[in-house]
This record gives sequence, C-alpha cells and structure tokens, in this order.
Amino acid sequence: MTAAFSCPVFLPSTFSYNGNRYHGRIKIKINATSSTKVKTLNEIAGAGKGSSSLATSTEIGHLSQEQIRQRIPTKKQLVDPYRQGLIIERGVGYRQTVVVRSYEVGPYKTATLESLLNLFQETALNHVWMSGLLSNGFGATHGMVRNNLIWVVSRMQVQVDHYPLWGEVLEIDTWVGASGKNGMRRDWLIRSQATGITYARATSTWVMMNEKTRRLSKMPEEVRDEISPWFIDKRAISEDVPEKIVKLDDNARYVNSDLKPKRSDLDMNHHVNNVKYVRWMLETIPDKFLGSHQLSGIVLEYRRECGSSDRVQSLCQPDEDETLTNGVEQSLHKNMILTPGIMEGNGYLGPLDVKSYGYTHLLQIKGDSKNEEIVRGRTRWRKKLSTLPNSS
Amino acid sequence: MTAAFSCPVFLPSTFSYNGNRYHGRIKIKINATSSTKVKTLNEIAGAGKGSSSLATSTEIGHLSQEQIRQRIPTKKQLVDPYRQGLIIERGVGYRQTVVVRSYEVGPYKTATLESLLNLFQETALNHVWMSGLLSNGFGATHGMVRNNLIWVVSRMQVQVDHYPLWGEVLEIDTWVGASGKNGMRRDWLIRSQATGITYARATSTWVMMNEKTRRLSKMPEEVRDEISPWFIDKRAISEDVPEKIVKLDDNARYVNSDLKPKRSDLDMNHHVNNVKYVRWMLETIPDKFLGSHQLSGIVLEYRRECGSSDRVQSLCQPDEDETLTNGVEQSLHKNMILTPGIMEGNGYLGPLDVKSYGYTHLLQIKGDSKNEEIVRGRTRWRKKLSTLPNSS
Repeated sequence: MTAAFSCPVFLPSTFSYNGNRYHGRIKIKINATSSTKVKTLNEIAGAGKGSSSLATSTEIGHLSQEQIRQRIPTKKQLVDPYRQGLIIERGVGYRQTVVVRSYEVGPYKTATLESLLNLFQETALNHVWMSGLLSNGFGATHGMVRNNLIWVVSRMQVQVDHYPLWGEVLEIDTWVGASGKNGMRRDWLIRSQATGITYARATSTWVMMNEKTRRLSKMPEEVRDEISPWFIDKRAISEDVPEKIVKLDDNARYVNSDLKPKRSDLDMNHHVNNVKYVRWMLETIPDKFLGSHQLSGIVLEYRRECGSSDRVQSLCQPDEDETLTNGVEQSLHKNMILTPGIMEGNGYLGPLDVKSYGYTHLLQIKGDSKNEEIVRGRTRWRKKLSTLPNSS
Repeated sequence: MTAAFSCPVFLPSTFSYNGNRYHGRIKIKINATSSTKVKTLNEIAGAGKGSSSLATSTEIGHLSQEQIRQRIPTKKQLVDPYRQGLIIERGVGYRQTVVVRSYEVGPYKTATLESLLNLFQETALNHVWMSGLLSNGFGATHGMVRNNLIWVVSRMQVQVDHYPLWGEVLEIDTWVGASGKNGMRRDWLIRSQATGITYARATSTWVMMNEKTRRLSKMPEEVRDEISPWFIDKRAISEDVPEKIVKLDDNARYVNSDLKPKRSDLDMNHHVNNVKYVRWMLETIPDKFLGSHQLSGIVLEYRRECGSSDRVQSLCQPDEDETLTNGVEQSLHKNMILTPGIMEGNGYLGPLDVKSYGYTHLLQIKGDSKNEEIVRGRTRWRKKLSTLPNSS
C-alpha cells in the first residue's frame, strides 16, 4: 500500500498527439546570457518542419505550438517523470508524489486547506492527463468536447487529520467511481511518503454541463465508454447518509458582503475557482476563532457558477448547540475519533479532546430582486494545542 | 546548457540530521480504508526508538517529528528526486524541473506572474535546502540562526518574454553572487524544457536583518564563510545603472485604499508575503488595461516590512510620456527587442511592435500622522495580440 515512487521506471521518448508523433525534446542550442538573440518559438516551429524561416503560421501540420509545449498524451501513459505520477490500482488509479512547497504553507509551516484543494485539482487533472483521454480543457475528455460538455462539481468533502509540513514529501492517490447514472465520484488520499500515515482524505461528485446552454446533461454513451473502465468501487470516506446543509438567511451571525472576484481569481474555465469560494467562506469566520482552531473537515454543496462580474456575499453561522445531530457532523466526528494522534506544533489535541466546533456557510450572489446561491458549506474545527508558531 | 534532468541518478537512502542518521523510509503498514485505526505520528516516533507506546514526548533523541517529516539535509546533496532538483554549475548552481500546474495559470492557460514569483521563492529555498546549510527557517543558514539573522529582499527585477503554458515542463536555474560587502544577489532563468528557449529571467538582492531588533546587519564572517563558496559571477539580467523609482504621492491617478492583509496572506515569517504585494500593485491598474496588456517586466524596491495589522494603500500612475528616459525602462525595453517572437494565444506581438507601456507603483502603510513606504515598483507592459482565450 505504501510503496514509494522514487524513480520512474522509464521515460517514453515518443509522444503522440492527434495522430502526429513528436520525438522527445527539440534540441536547440542557445546562449543563456540575456543579450544574446535566442530562437523564437516560431523559429522552433519552423525548424520542426524542416524550415528555418520565421514562419507566421501557428501550426506545424496538425501540431500547434500549444500542443508541442503542453505535450498532452493521446495514449495512456503508465508513468510521468515530470509530474512524478504513476498509474496504480491495476491500471486505473493515479498516484503522484509531491513536496509541500514554501508558498503552500501558512505561518505555522503547515499546508493550508487551499493548498490541499489545489493539489486535489492538480492530481485529478494529471490522472486524466495520463489516461490519454484529456482534451485541451479542464479535465474534459475527447468525447465530452465532441458533445460540448464540461465537468462541474456538485459536492466536495474533505477531512484533514494532519496538516502536512513545509518540505514534507506526500503521496496523493486519486481514483474515480460511478455516482448514480450520470455522475462520477472522485476520491483522494494524502499520505506521508516517509511513514505511510494518512493525512487527509476527500471525496467529490461531478456532473456534466453543456458548455453552451449551461444546463446539466446526461452522460452520453461515448463518454461513459471512455471513463467507466477507470471506475473503482472504493471510497476514501465512508459516509453515512449525507444530510442536507441548512440554508442560511440574513439572520446569519457573520456576513461579509460585496466580495468581488479579481482577475487573479479566474481559472482556465473563466470562472471563479472553487478554491476561492473556500477562502471567502473561511475569511468570514472571526479571526479570533481562526487563530485558535484548526479545520478538521469541510463539506461543500455547489449550486451555481460564479462569474467575474458577480458580487458575492458570504454568510456563516456557528453551531449554537454542540450536540451532534447532523449526519455530516457525525461522519466527520467519527473519523476524528478513529484517527487520534498528538502532533507537535500542529495543534492536534489527540484522542482525549474530541470536542469539535461547527460552522454553517453560504455564498450567494447579491441580486436586485433575489439572491442566488453559489455554494452551501459546513466546516468542522478542533482547538489548536498552541497558537504559537513552531520554534524548533 | 539545455540538458534535461529527466530521472534522478540516485536516491540517497540515508539522510543525516544534526548528527543523527535516519535510514530511509519508516515502513508502517496501514489499511487505507477510513474506518481503520492507523498508527499515529507519535506511535511512529515511539517505534523509531524501539518502543510501541504512545509517547507524549515530541523528540526521538535529538530528532523531532518535524525533522523526521521535513528531512532537511545537513550535508550537501547533489540531487533531490522529490524536488526534481540538481546541483549544477560546477557544484554551486541549482536546477529544478517543474510542471506548470493547473492552479498556477490564469484564464488564458498561461502561468501568472504570481506563480513565477512563487517558483522563484521555491527554487531559491530548495537551493539552500540542497546545500546542507538550511536551518529551519525561511532560507536562513545555521550561521545566520546563531546570529539571529534573517534574509530580507531589497530589490527584485523580473523580465518575462514568454508566459509558460499549463502543463508545460520548465527548467528553472538559480544561483547566488556577491552584492556589495554585506549583500547577496540571487538570479533565476526559466527555460522551456522541450526547446531550451528562455521564458523569463530575474535578479534580486538580499540583505540580512536582525530578527529581534529588526535592523539591517552586516554579514558576519561565519555566514560569509558558509555562503561565499556558492557565489558565481554571472547575471541573468545585464543591467545598466538601475535608476531610482519615483515616489508617488496622493496625486497618483489610481489609488486603492484600505487593503487588509488576510490570514492567508501571511507566510512562514509571519509577514505579508512579497507575492501579495505584487497582487495589490497589479490590482490597482484598471481592469480594461489588464485585459488588453501583458506584463513584460517588473522592478520592485522594498523599503519596509508589512505586518498583519497594517492597513495598506496601493497607488499607481501610468507613464504620460512614452519616451524612454529611465534606465530601468531602457533595460527592460532592450531585452524586449532582443528576444522577439510571436506566440500563439499568448498575446506577444513580436519584433514589429516594441511599444511598451509603463506604470509606477507605490504600496504604503496608512499612518495617523505619516505614511510609511512598503515597496516602490515599476511595471512594463505590451499589448496582447488578442483578448480572446485560446480555443485550440
């Protein structure tokens, strides 16, 4: 289960793109000093078809510069040395080794929830990348592109038992499964590469949307044929019946209005990225609580997209009564009891303190006549052992 | 110059930490289902000293859990398979291979300036990591920690000829050199791994600050002895005399007041990260300009730190007269002419359009009696070829 992926077994030197074959690296000798004229990308493209002229065409046969530079495989790859990725689970799961980077951690040198969500997105896309099914979109397969379909996430649940440290080596496993007739489930596990201990687990459900009509779509047969061979019946989080998250109204305790998406919040889909939603949610919780607590779990129910011109309002409400009556909470709580531990500097209190704190969240678009829900959320928190930074 | 680092030559199986030796991976068999009791980190720590009890001590001999998890080397490493890093340049430079991740690109699938700055920070720290000199701080050496010293950046200059695409494989080289008697220069080059073409270059100067008094410090002899063997006399950007950046005042055309550092903006030093400064600067430029232009160069002069409780004001002023009279501009402009190219979808106009647009920037802390400068900046921009996203 915990075998390390330390060195790729082989590096395929030939990639194929849409029927063309591109052989390894284009070798262009350049001088690295800044005052030297280097070959432009178009000169390289020209060289690729046996000409050294500065071509203005952006295509080499059917190979665009973007394709040369991205090298999205059109056939299944078992290993990717650059992504440190590996196909596992009898050929259908994906494992990637990552190092927690300096800018992915907060003041306590532990990875932020946002960083974990980013790594979930990255490994999911790399899984599709390795499959040979990736068209040039945000995880859409060739069959989906032919049908003008894109993936939209409908639900996401994350549990964090331990936050990875700056510089720590992680193994992230991800795989997909069926979700109803027209959906897909994607799960993740984050483990310490050194010890094999699970740090975090996540599950999500995805449906297809017509890119033009923006309406949800059934899964076409050709898409099912592409992705269903990759389905595994295995769950990162064993859920009890997931309860609906209560919808907050204007009486919510904390409200942050007039949140404006910035240019830098938009992703490849030209929409506000999901990770930004979570930031807006968490920033609405009072600083004093955030300084003394650590997030142990989050559930998100997505309702609609948010565009760059929308004005967003974030509401949140702490649980008045800490009696656990909600299925989501029970599930989060159970997992907390099952994976106890005391972590130096990481603020985890261990098996004796199972008290957890809950918040309900809502992001909505402020409309003139009515508000429109973007996402509902539930977060669970545990008290930090210490609010001081590590000082070792 | 453009040799690919595709597969590590060896994986050192023994690391040493402060005199202790830690042998490879601690093998702990776990069951990956969520309902299974897994070993806690402290049980692992206990196992490490031959005990299976749930120890409350956070130390294994002199080895803390943090050290086990981070594995900061105490001796020089020539290669790091996890970081995909390699010591080059006769043993003193560093090269890291990275893949542009999905969350590091903007709506046009090109890496954002923030992502490039993050990668600069990451590769710089990994360079120190590989050197065996890294103490457990933000790039501080053992000698610096003994003298309560931290690094602070005083100047940063970045030129971007081409923005890397999502999924593209890059090689980032970084190295250090002397800067005056008490400073250090650090440079970077970002190249396409596939073609060897240089995409971006950067240079920065660093000085030492006493962590307690917050005053700049001379470089102690023991620190000079640690780092000077790593100095190379080579520059990523050949600068003419760098001109001072004009200080803006309340008459600046665009002003964004009351910027508040968020919890998520703080880095390991408990200060607002430099990358956040750049975001605040760029967000003050009108959206219309940002939508039709692409940043080609930036110069930053840092004046003082910004803490989490400061209220920040961002000012910027477009150049009225496009006549190039400023040394910084000339330098940026020259490099633009020297490295022409036409890039599909990347909005680079090529050798015929060398017109560039400039902005002067200032971030300052709003005080009751007077304002205090955080950073002055200059940005250079070129017109995008198209404001439409890639549609290949």
